[in-house]
Amino acid sequence: MYPFDQEKLASLLESAQIDLALVNSRHNLRYLTNYYFHFHQNFTRIDLSQYLPLLGLPAGNFADSFYVGISYEMGQMESEGVWVENRRESPRSVVGAAERAWQLIESLGLGAGRIGVEMGFLPADAYVTLQTNLPQATIVDVQPVLDELRAIKTERELALIRNINDQVAESICATFGNGRDGITTREISDAVRLEIEQRGMRFVWSLTGAGPSFMKAPSQAQWTAGNVLHLDCGGEIDDYVADICRMGCLGRPSQLATELHAACLEVQDKVRRLIKPGVPCDEIYHAALEAAGSSPFAQYGNFDFHGMGMVSHEHPYIEPSNSRLLAPGMVLSIETEYMHPEVGAVKLEDAAAVTADGCEGYGDQGRELQIV
Amino acid sequence: MYPFDQEKLASLLESAQIDLALVNSRHNLRYLTNYYFHFHQNFTRIDLSQYLPLLGLPAGNFADSFYVGISYEMGQMESEGVWVENRRESPRSVVGAAERAWQLIESLGLGAGRIGVEMGFLPADAYVTLQTNLPQATIVDVQPVLDELRAIKTERELALIRNINDQVAESICATFGNGRDGITTREISDAVRLEIEQRGMRFVWSLTGAGPSFMKAPSQAQWTAGNVLHLDCGGEIDDYVADICRMGCLGRPSQLATELHAACLEVQDKVRRLIKPGVPCDEIYHAALEAAGSSPFAQYGNFDFHGMGMVSHEHPYIEPSNSRLLAPGMVLSIETEYMHPEVGAVKLEDAAAVTADGCEGYGDQGRELQIV
Repeated sequence: MYPFDQEKLASLLESAQIDLALVNSRHNLRYLTNYYFHFHQNFTRIDLSQYLPLLGLPAGNFADSFYVGISYEMGQMESEGVWVENRRESPRSVVGAAERAWQLIESLGLGAGRIGVEMGFLPADAYVTLQTNLPQATIVDVQPVLDELRAIKTERELALIRNINDQVAESICATFGNGRDGITTREISDAVRLEIEQRGMRFVWSLTGAGPSFMKAPSQAQWTAGNVLHLDCGGEIDDYVADICRMGCLGRPSQLATELHAACLEVQDKVRRLIKPGVPCDEIYHAALEAAGSSPFAQYGNFDFHGMGMVSHEHPYIEPSNSRLLAPGMVLSIETEYMHPEVGAVKLEDAAAVTADGCEGYGDQGRELQIV
Repeated sequence: MYPFDQEKLASLLESAQIDLALVNSRHNLRYLTNYYFHFHQNFTRIDLSQYLPLLGLPAGNFADSFYVGISYEMGQMESEGVWVENRRESPRSVVGAAERAWQLIESLGLGAGRIGVEMGFLPADAYVTLQTNLPQATIVDVQPVLDELRAIKTERELALIRNINDQVAESICATFGNGRDGITTREISDAVRLEIEQRGMRFVWSLTGAGPSFMKAPSQAQWTAGNVLHLDCGGEIDDYVADICRMGCLGRPSQLATELHAACLEVQDKVRRLIKPGVPCDEIYHAALEAAGSSPFAQYGNFDFHGMGMVSHEHPYIEPSNSRLLAPGMVLSIETEYMHPEVGAVKLEDAAAVTADGCEGYGDQGRELQIV
């Protein structure tokens, strides 16, 4: 019935001593309910405020959970069979929603409890409304709990994440294929946006860098013969995000460009070979930095290695201070970039899921330099 | 240099006794700077928090304005010639951005001033950071000031709003044209999304109602021969939103469906004839309700009449308590709907801009019942 691991959430809330989680971010609402009101999915602003859905999850008793939304969304909730039975309507405003929520918290007997909200996402007006009306409550951040809840992906999630990464990589390759001398990075960005959208994804971003410039924001800059193109794109389905970077070259690449690209690929492959269950994040951090640092182009290099899922930069955190072990079902993003003044920003970014005995690349299409 | 009316903003801030406006919502940032960091335009979440840009505008001295962003966006700001010269980098987190902002507010000598923030949009963590570090400041809501600043559209804005409404109306008509017996409302929603995206807009929403059901969320419900289809869609360019509803029918409509549609059209036209400069909002509210109420189908009716621009439901507020006069450059959305159990939700929604002597419809394509 619940689309999330209720035992894990119950245990995380208990450890954090949170009596009720009050969730409002789109990605966490989606994770916890498989639902978001379609009308406000791509914009929330209305009148002098915004649409604010709120899901309340009392620790240890999810059957008493409540959802505060607006009247227009009740049909969709019914049609999609959302598990939360206590659905309450509020006026379409931040304060209206927060007022309804505090009444529900009070009626659950949790008015003096520890309430976990998303401090980085809850609008200030809602925070003040809760604080004012629940003066005995302690309001804390529930974000670490939700982040940990999402750390290990299910088979269903992995299939979705694999698919998005494949589709984004294909979108990038298709865009290279339509390149031409003098095309602007704005035109390239529009083209890859449409490639992503035509595949049924939500377009999230495109970093478009035409060498030898390092500028990646879409602009009037042109991609011209003999130069590389850096295309780092994000696409989204149901709030899961794919993040892939591939390189193209218009005509024959220079020796240097070819070498820079080969060096990226070598570091990526070295790092991917390190990924397997049981390796501590801090160990893999140092090993990956060493692999990246041993490249002949290391002086031009940036290297990043982070967890991915609904959020870019989530568990597992590959950091020197984190001794957590990699586990099957974690998904990683690996990025190696050389910013060389004669060539531009040469970069590869791959996604890889931790498997039972290593890792599986997602969206591996087009890792070789794409000659157009 | 400034893309907004600086005299008007200065005067509004003075009236509201606000010493500094601190703006974070995407639409208001865009309005005030013609800029938003492309990478985070369609998603902001990262790590345990989100990207938070902050624009600080000291009342009466906009030359001392500051912008807090992240290092990656500085190239785009430079390339697009953003007017704010004092650009500061912060860590990519809500608290990091708010910490940088309070330091800048302090350094402007406004630490004990009245700071206007967007209470419905500023994340709680940023609010708490400001409150804690500026204990002598008074934090108030700047939303009414920004809403009023945007009330009268410039020629440039009107051209953009006209264009988006035209394109959304065309997207809807094209979608009707590809209708077929048994198509689901989910498929219809996907089709109109792509029509909107192919025209270079950001897809915002589609309410898709296949009669005789009143359900408008995209689902497995089918549009079948002889029934109407309600298609109410939103599209966006540069954060200006168009909101148009048109009706189609698969094959020959029933007499009742034809009459309901004609009744919508009649109310819409009557209301549109009332729009001209100098009419008070409360007067037009009553006149419009009277026009809607005189329809033979009034018992099934919903009628709504509201300002449009970057926000749906903004100035002019057509309400009984608002005696403000309509003025050229205001844009209105007008919607008449009859929810008839034998036919479904029959609705038209038009956009109209107040002109020197009346109003001009935007996106008027397809107002007649579209027979497929």
